[in-house]
Amino acid sequence: MCFQNELDKRVEKAEKIISGYLPAKAVHQHTVIDAMEYSVLAGGKRLRPVIMQAVWEMFGSKEDIAPFMAAMEMIHTYSLVHDDLPEMDNDELRRGKPTTHVQYGQAMAVLAGDGLLNYAYETMLKAAQKAEDKSAFIRAMSLLAEKAGIYGMVGGQCLDVEAEEKGIELSEEQIRFVYENKTAALLQASLMCGAYLAKDEDAAAVLEKAGYDLGIAFQLQDDILDIESTTQELGKPVGSDERNGKKTYVSFLGIDTAKKEQERLSGEAVELIGSIAVSGAERENAKRFLMELIRSLTGRKK
Amino acid sequence: MCFQNELDKRVEKAEKIISGYLPAKAVHQHTVIDAMEYSVLAGGKRLRPVIMQAVWEMFGSKEDIAPFMAAMEMIHTYSLVHDDLPEMDNDELRRGKPTTHVQYGQAMAVLAGDGLLNYAYETMLKAAQKAEDKSAFIRAMSLLAEKAGIYGMVGGQCLDVEAEEKGIELSEEQIRFVYENKTAALLQASLMCGAYLAKDEDAAAVLEKAGYDLGIAFQLQDDILDIESTTQELGKPVGSDERNGKKTYVSFLGIDTAKKEQERLSGEAVELIGSIAVSGAERENAKRFLMELIRSLTGRKK
Repeated sequence: MCFQNELDKRVEKAEKIISGYLPAKAVHQHTVIDAMEYSVLAGGKRLRPVIMQAVWEMFGSKEDIAPFMAAMEMIHTYSLVHDDLPEMDNDELRRGKPTTHVQYGQAMAVLAGDGLLNYAYETMLKAAQKAEDKSAFIRAMSLLAEKAGIYGMVGGQCLDVEAEEKGIELSEEQIRFVYENKTAALLQASLMCGAYLAKDEDAAAVLEKAGYDLGIAFQLQDDILDIESTTQELGKPVGSDERNGKKTYVSFLGIDTAKKEQERLSGEAVELIGSIAVSGAERENAKRFLMELIRSLTGRKK
Repeated sequence: MCFQNELDKRVEKAEKIISGYLPAKAVHQHTVIDAMEYSVLAGGKRLRPVIMQAVWEMFGSKEDIAPFMAAMEMIHTYSLVHDDLPEMDNDELRRGKPTTHVQYGQAMAVLAGDGLLNYAYETMLKAAQKAEDKSAFIRAMSLLAEKAGIYGMVGGQCLDVEAEEKGIELSEEQIRFVYENKTAALLQASLMCGAYLAKDEDAAAVLEKAGYDLGIAFQLQDDILDIESTTQELGKPVGSDERNGKKTYVSFLGIDTAKKEQERLSGEAVELIGSIAVSGAERENAKRFLMELIRSLTGRKK
């Protein structure tokens, strides 16, 4: 099967899993549940759940990855809902649709984000009650929680928000911190969960490094595209960072070094995954897909 | 020891435990961590952790209740931080101190709330990795998550926010739903965690009922005080619900029936806890304290 077909199939599968874990309707609090569903189903590449499932297939484990895939997408979605709020990025459109606070009001968007974050843990913990290998399950949940919190995604958002609000110019180290936490942390968790469920701590460490590389490469590419792409290719105005006086990592590295660094990191991420030994056609196939996925993600034109 | 002394001692102990679980400082994201700490240490009765510890003592369990106490207070605090936001209740003072968004800005308050909610799970999951009885630990975490989410606290907040925003007049059933979820749910979780850690499902069911009674009684008392207390006793303007045209449960029951219902529920909560058999002086003492605590909570003048 060609890569694009396989990707489409995997995204579709992830979509089904995510939908299946959405919270059941309820009478009195239907609005917050509707707002949560609206936010999750507003679209998206489902990149993190797709990565999770591929890694899980690479390692195999009796424990199901599905609740983690759903939880990860809920956490990713809650972060977008809160990020879009007027007091944060104040975005009114996401993927061509009104953002949650535009659709449901600001208070309900706060609650929907809270509801999603909490429901991610409800989902995993409900599944954990039935898990056979509770240690492995707890290890994976704990890792996901860490990467989503103040020593992960929320930590990265903190510095990003502060820089924006106070007009602070971030240092190279600080920008790298934001990329590492705001972007790389959830990718790392997506790559690591499957390895933890299979109790392969060594592989998890390799995947953590790969997730770091992937996250930084991904973000570097965003910055490069913002400078070099045409508005038509990107689907949004280019050069917006420069116009907004926003320093990016590229401002420090220069465009040529940034491109080289982006290529080096993407290559390293693919190599790291390649270095993990797996046996059997199915596992080999999942590994090959994951490597192609990373290549495609970091070589994108839009 | 007289009740007030024991309560003071237990609150002090809870304070120490909560402080001990606050997140470690960090360089780049120190602001969100400061805001979280500010919010948690802004005071409060520490009622939920104190209840948790007393129930835990009633049942005994190898698994430590301390991480649950800290997590519960983080969850309670995050809900206050988000509730105080301008788009929600728009409160500028809490316990005489500037609310988190007044002190740290609105965006940082959103993040601090998110950080606290997530850190509650980080805290419990980190402890779960070392727990001997992982099943019991997972059961307790799962219960807490459920009571904090859309089928618990967030669900109650949803209807409360909608009524406020859209000026909808809630029905008796809807008000009861708000009380049950916004107020009772976390009290139920506080009462049930210790029983789950000790794998006593029967007692947990009794305590769930007691928590429901306590939550409704607590809220009824608030409404009654708002009508009958003097401003001096209450420390805030009385009659505010009526002036704000806010329907309370008392509006439906009438003040006399409300008082009787409040007494009935408090009495039932105490009786339910009394009905749980425990043996040994220490456990008996914890049970006695818990019964007194509930009596004191539901008989308060302020």
